[in-house]
Amino acid sequence: MAMAYLGSKKANSAALMSSPSPSPHQRILTQDELKKIAAYKAVEFVESGMVLGLGTGSTAKHAIDRIGELLQQGKLSNIVGIPTSTMTHEQALSLGIPLSDLDNHPVLDLAIDGADEVDPDMNLVKGRGGSLLREKMIEGCCKKFVVIVDESKLVDYVGGSGLAMPVEIVPFCWKFTAQKLQSLFEEAGCVAKLRTSPENGKPFVTDNGNFIIDLYFKKDIGDLKAAGDAILRLAGVVEHGMFLDMATTLIVAGELGVTVRHKC
Amino acid sequence: MAMAYLGSKKANSAALMSSPSPSPHQRILTQDELKKIAAYKAVEFVESGMVLGLGTGSTAKHAIDRIGELLQQGKLSNIVGIPTSTMTHEQALSLGIPLSDLDNHPVLDLAIDGADEVDPDMNLVKGRGGSLLREKMIEGCCKKFVVIVDESKLVDYVGGSGLAMPVEIVPFCWKFTAQKLQSLFEEAGCVAKLRTSPENGKPFVTDNGNFIIDLYFKKDIGDLKAAGDAILRLAGVVEHGMFLDMATTLIVAGELGVTVRHKC
Repeated sequence: MAMAYLGSKKANSAALMSSPSPSPHQRILTQDELKKIAAYKAVEFVESGMVLGLGTGSTAKHAIDRIGELLQQGKLSNIVGIPTSTMTHEQALSLGIPLSDLDNHPVLDLAIDGADEVDPDMNLVKGRGGSLLREKMIEGCCKKFVVIVDESKLVDYVGGSGLAMPVEIVPFCWKFTAQKLQSLFEEAGCVAKLRTSPENGKPFVTDNGNFIIDLYFKKDIGDLKAAGDAILRLAGVVEHGMFLDMATTLIVAGELGVTVRHKC
Repeated sequence: MAMAYLGSKKANSAALMSSPSPSPHQRILTQDELKKIAAYKAVEFVESGMVLGLGTGSTAKHAIDRIGELLQQGKLSNIVGIPTSTMTHEQALSLGIPLSDLDNHPVLDLAIDGADEVDPDMNLVKGRGGSLLREKMIEGCCKKFVVIVDESKLVDYVGGSGLAMPVEIVPFCWKFTAQKLQSLFEEAGCVAKLRTSPENGKPFVTDNGNFIIDLYFKKDIGDLKAAGDAILRLAGVVEHGMFLDMATTLIVAGELGVTVRHKC
């Protein structure tokens, strides 16, 4: 079924097409190839003259690479990028994408970013990459927000992948805040864990100098807006990783092809 | 009317009683003397063995001084203090008050702190001293929270003094967040200003490495809970200075005496 992609107009990269593959009809695409397909599809929404929110993470990275490529080829021009992390800032700089910030461009035409989970209502979990706050600030003021994922990110409910829903908190008395967060979702069997750096075991520190508490749910937590407000009301919490009612377009790349879904 | 205080059991300090005053019956107390009276009254609620939240600011400072004094005199013992700022931490240390933190003492018996405004429902505005986040974390988990003010702090509505309602925000794109905050309360004629240091004009930085946006309202903003949630939902906001439904006891010192009010 991999050939399904090859017919799409711009979605397939030269790299994908030239992958060594004795039998392309049977080859199963890697997760990274699926991410790239979704990312390239998203870049089809980019037009010259746009102010663009540039996401963070392995999927968004492909989109930014593609934007850089189209700028170099002269197929896009007059783009202004607003990066959602220092990592993306550096990537975009290296590609020659002109950059600015929210202070100078408080309204964005379009943002493209990945997500860690997408529920049936297009609510997202983001921030496993640690950049949820800047992403939410930037993607919250876009006219269009295109979310790009491979099909492994689709879940029945937030937390349904068994992976974390991250919450950014101030370092001051983080154990206390973690305990409060865990108690808030006791009925959903919540476990709260401080995110640590795999290199040295020390707390992971965000671009804003904060810590991340990863919440793991055993069950659906129910009303997401109410849950979000309850989390934010805890003093010590800076932001949570649920992006509710923000995505306007969802692009999913899977073995059966690319699907594009727009929010009504 | 100053004599009204002199009859109270412990509220008047030696310093107050020995103030040079040729005619104590007519002398008008200074604002700092009123703060001290309220603070000393609050310390009457402190019992040996308590875990205490120690506030920040000119009024709380008097209470902490008094607690240190009673410890030294052996009238209080076995106190553990949880300071709400580095400034209070240092003051308490210098007085020999044993200190701990929320991670080790997540439940407090009592907190004593001042406030910048108190509305008729005992909702508070705090944070003109810049320590609102730690204060809210600590005072939010106290069995009793005694608020001490001089009568100039009583307002008809939040913002009614014409002074600031502070909001702690992340430094990243602070102008953008300030603009969002101002827009949120456009109908109340809100003006949002970055707090700067009087010494060098640079942004004031909180104990948590964040900035403060001071909001000035021309009118009552109405439903405070709804306003608080709306503020917290802005990505970039860490915490706001409205302490809603938190105070359990209010002590007001004024020219006509000390009043103590308990929340039902």
